[in-house]
Amino acid sequence: MKIGIIGKGNVGTHLNNALSEDASNNVCLINSRTFEGLEIDCDLLLICVKDDAIEGVAAEIARYIPDYQGTVAHTSGSVSMEILRSRFSNCGVLYPLQTFTKQRELNYAEIPVFIEAQTEESENLLRMAASSFTDKIYQADSEKRKALHVGAVLSCNFVNFLYGKAEEILKENGYDFSVLYPLIKETLERTRDKSPTETQTGPAARGDFNVINSHLEFLGDKPETERIYRLLTNSIYIGSKEKIER
Amino acid sequence: MKIGIIGKGNVGTHLNNALSEDASNNVCLINSRTFEGLEIDCDLLLICVKDDAIEGVAAEIARYIPDYQGTVAHTSGSVSMEILRSRFSNCGVLYPLQTFTKQRELNYAEIPVFIEAQTEESENLLRMAASSFTDKIYQADSEKRKALHVGAVLSCNFVNFLYGKAEEILKENGYDFSVLYPLIKETLERTRDKSPTETQTGPAARGDFNVINSHLEFLGDKPETERIYRLLTNSIYIGSKEKIER
Repeated sequence: MKIGIIGKGNVGTHLNNALSEDASNNVCLINSRTFEGLEIDCDLLLICVKDDAIEGVAAEIARYIPDYQGTVAHTSGSVSMEILRSRFSNCGVLYPLQTFTKQRELNYAEIPVFIEAQTEESENLLRMAASSFTDKIYQADSEKRKALHVGAVLSCNFVNFLYGKAEEILKENGYDFSVLYPLIKETLERTRDKSPTETQTGPAARGDFNVINSHLEFLGDKPETERIYRLLTNSIYIGSKEKIER
Repeated sequence: MKIGIIGKGNVGTHLNNALSEDASNNVCLINSRTFEGLEIDCDLLLICVKDDAIEGVAAEIARYIPDYQGTVAHTSGSVSMEILRSRFSNCGVLYPLQTFTKQRELNYAEIPVFIEAQTEESENLLRMAASSFTDKIYQADSEKRKALHVGAVLSCNFVNFLYGKAEEILKENGYDFSVLYPLIKETLERTRDKSPTETQTGPAARGDFNVINSHLEFLGDKPETERIYRLLTNSIYIGSKEKIER
């Protein structure tokens, strides 16, 4: 299978590595600025550029390779398949649910990939491509992909932000953020047995206002963290009370 | 070393297991209701009861074993050493930074333990006890322990709550929470290379209001999650903008 990757950022770089794990794939990186006069004989063109650049790249492909018969797909969590559908009969989305950093090695076999396709041919092609590095392949239309993306924002971007706030506090007190690793790891591991909602612990879940107030006082010189502490504590407390009263 | 553990909850059960890993320790579980007439020859008494019960247990020990010469310590992140100091000359705190669930196995060697002690004798005793299962032993007075506890609330309790919100959304769309594991794991692993504040990604960090607005619309029927999304997005956006402008 011949795959062309457009975009040399974090996603493009990693997908290039991941897809190359299957030696029978022929993966090449394509610079979107050199489409003109280019002969593309790829079965699949994967657009791995920033969200707001996808449409432009799609337009370029349609313009410079008007007779392209393969499948064109993008890899974004938040862009609809629509912007490809209007230009290509064979199109789709291959969304890898992971955060990519060029310098970091990843275990590609672990990455779940979510696929949407306009035709059966594209569907088969995208599944085949994904299966070169993972067997965690799922279906997701644009609306479900949005749900996944919101879930990723909550459990990755927001969580990372809270890690940052925790790190700041620990640093000020002479500790490295890594002292929290075992706790954070166990918080995640525990969700394998039970839903996180069921295992919610801590002062907010217990309604322990002595501790909550002493923490709010402690955060007095960090109004932003205090505001976040207050809102999340409130939500957790109300949720736990409702669970008890049910 | 002879250690008495008071409390059979999650912390008491796990500390009993952890301390028993060193075969030279003689660990016994003590029921705080049977202090009367009890002969206690432990070097160390570890109070592992709920925060608001610690003082009562301390009072009982002082009442029924007035000539106790060993060290009395509690294991709480949020209770000051003060309530022990007024009753015992040898006292302290042994705070294991972990979330304990009875049914779950833990790697005790990974757990960081934070120690505060009133005397050198207590300090040595608590360090020796902790070293039976971990070599991650740190100093923490009551104020620093509070900082650690706030850090734990941010990066464990609050994070777990966000996991729960993400799980809810995924479930409604037919996915298991576990599809987020690789992403969540990488979000943590990445902090080994760089501070979480430096690696903040996502629509809020990029100031991508198209995506943010579509997510807020998606969360329209979940006002609580929407409120949290709005506040955290705002904080991340402002933080990222400040970083860029600096």
